[in-house]
Amino acid sequence: MAKLKEFKSDSAMGLRGIKAVNTALCSLSVESMKLCYLGYPLEQLARYSTFEEVSYLLINGELPTRDELSNWTQQLIDDRTLPEMVKGGLERMSGSTDPMSVLRTAVSLLGNEEPEQKIDGKAAAVRLLGILPAMLGYLNSQKKRDRIDSDEKTLAGYLLHTVRGIRPTGMERDMMNCSLILYAEHELAASTFAARVCASTLSDLHSCILCGIGTLAGPLHGGANEAALELLCRFSDPEEARSGVLRMLENKERVMGFGHAVYKESDPRSPIIREWAHKLCTEKKDMRLFEIAEAIEHVMWNERRLFSNLDYYTAVAYSVSGIPKSLFTPIFVVSRCAGWCAHVLEQRADNKLVRPIANYVGTEEREYIPIEKR
Amino acid sequence: MAKLKEFKSDSAMGLRGIKAVNTALCSLSVESMKLCYLGYPLEQLARYSTFEEVSYLLINGELPTRDELSNWTQQLIDDRTLPEMVKGGLERMSGSTDPMSVLRTAVSLLGNEEPEQKIDGKAAAVRLLGILPAMLGYLNSQKKRDRIDSDEKTLAGYLLHTVRGIRPTGMERDMMNCSLILYAEHELAASTFAARVCASTLSDLHSCILCGIGTLAGPLHGGANEAALELLCRFSDPEEARSGVLRMLENKERVMGFGHAVYKESDPRSPIIREWAHKLCTEKKDMRLFEIAEAIEHVMWNERRLFSNLDYYTAVAYSVSGIPKSLFTPIFVVSRCAGWCAHVLEQRADNKLVRPIANYVGTEEREYIPIEKR
Repeated sequence: MAKLKEFKSDSAMGLRGIKAVNTALCSLSVESMKLCYLGYPLEQLARYSTFEEVSYLLINGELPTRDELSNWTQQLIDDRTLPEMVKGGLERMSGSTDPMSVLRTAVSLLGNEEPEQKIDGKAAAVRLLGILPAMLGYLNSQKKRDRIDSDEKTLAGYLLHTVRGIRPTGMERDMMNCSLILYAEHELAASTFAARVCASTLSDLHSCILCGIGTLAGPLHGGANEAALELLCRFSDPEEARSGVLRMLENKERVMGFGHAVYKESDPRSPIIREWAHKLCTEKKDMRLFEIAEAIEHVMWNERRLFSNLDYYTAVAYSVSGIPKSLFTPIFVVSRCAGWCAHVLEQRADNKLVRPIANYVGTEEREYIPIEKR
Repeated sequence: MAKLKEFKSDSAMGLRGIKAVNTALCSLSVESMKLCYLGYPLEQLARYSTFEEVSYLLINGELPTRDELSNWTQQLIDDRTLPEMVKGGLERMSGSTDPMSVLRTAVSLLGNEEPEQKIDGKAAAVRLLGILPAMLGYLNSQKKRDRIDSDEKTLAGYLLHTVRGIRPTGMERDMMNCSLILYAEHELAASTFAARVCASTLSDLHSCILCGIGTLAGPLHGGANEAALELLCRFSDPEEARSGVLRMLENKERVMGFGHAVYKESDPRSPIIREWAHKLCTEKKDMRLFEIAEAIEHVMWNERRLFSNLDYYTAVAYSVSGIPKSLFTPIFVVSRCAGWCAHVLEQRADNKLVRPIANYVGTEEREYIPIEKR
């Protein structure tokens, strides 16, 4: 990479502010801090709706009627069944394999077994939404050597039951339902954009979703909630957290869970999950993690004017609900899969190949030199 | 997708002409029809170099010395070995599974077995370049039930030997070497761009390459050489081809293998592979496919001023070399993997998260409606 030193970072701005595609799925107003899915304010969906409704809304464009919702919910339950080929694949993977890599491979295997030619795009999307929690449960139960055959009706409840092996409380189920809604869609996040670039070559849905999973796996994207918990667990009380984070800032260390590539002043999703984290900690009579989180939040605001993002209090809510840290990002996949599928279908409906150009910063043209003269 | 009908296609231009990232790997001048890898004109590389040299150049930034080339070549040979887990995965896949899906799953399995934390990015890249032809060979030999343990030293020769089961002639080997060079890199093609978006979240190399494979699988990208052969095989002689394509144009059917998202007047790679296709057909004393291709090329130029692209005569050269059509796109993967890996390493060296925004074209903000009122 001889030429890399000469790069000008400021001429590669990561397409910040560039309108790459059209969407009717999500509006994100940075000025008014307003986030809507198909026109519905996210805070209303988070308060009154379910992940089943929201995934229906994203993929079909309108909220379901009672019958439509009941069919959709039943389809998601039916789609929990794992094909033998996928089960076998999951069983053969070593227990030490990163869960995101496992999920990636399992989705690829599903694409081999049930290619999209056999089922249409929308059916393949529901199948993915239904099967992803079952994949996670199967993976996790293998480690624990006991399998949960959960009769939980909601995707949120089933997910919690199957990955923890313990039936969720009502409050846990409601928190997870809300969390899945908050993570379901976020306009052109890097993973969604990658899925749309893939869709723009008219590739199959499974390949598009694999782009989403692979891109989400990066620590600058989906890994943020895991990193936030790692931060919180470094400290045993709020006072230690305060001084510890001040020291980190002095040493210019990165503090995870703060700021956002698009939002500049606050993350509209953050207060919603913060409330759930507070409720759960109160119910469980264990406020320690929440208080540590609050302490760090104050330091970051006072010292850097940086706000907590969605990932930050999600880490508290998931942790206090007994979800293993290694499953935080895979659960993000379960939820965002709804947004990815909706974007893929939207891209196909009015497609133009996504093909930007590069800014050339390399050497001038030069003559080939035969090997004996090098 | 209620709102799709209202989309304005012209406001989603697929980022055409937008400079998305910096690169020192490839310069592509549309005006002068000049394509260079790291400053070296592609026609010189195609004439004097080898895929081993070119992949070294892309990944390391300079042409290798004799010692460096010899080590690199040996590494590519050593890296042909398939881990048992990957072999098992390939064996369990049904013979009817699409080879691109097989390759996608096999690369995902490789990422599970040999995650990048264990080996650095550059080593993981060489491993991929070495193992991809072996994956294709293993897949193909399964169908034929006999396995080739090839001692071909060059990647081009090994690839041909292992996928066909027949040792290549010198001319076939040279054509494949040239074809792999021509396909190795092409600036921000959709697949490369998807791989860079993935890399920009600092995800692992295997996930990035999976984005490349998944995106290349689409018929608007990697599938073009297969589609070109399908076109040529519709006709039994040049005269039939001429009238057939004229009829297709009248019916506004898409004729594959012509035009390009970036080039407007010609594809600088096309005459190079055309020459090889001509040489091979001459050697094999079977000019039929070449003459059909020429006849269609004339019609497309006279009627539409459309030029043949790289994929067009590649279809002739591969077909006359006895390569099954279903492996055309997977061979594209073997070659372009060099470019993808180089772009991923380049993205990491000066990273900025790729996160554009969308142009919102959906409904105005609206109130959530409880289900009983819908």
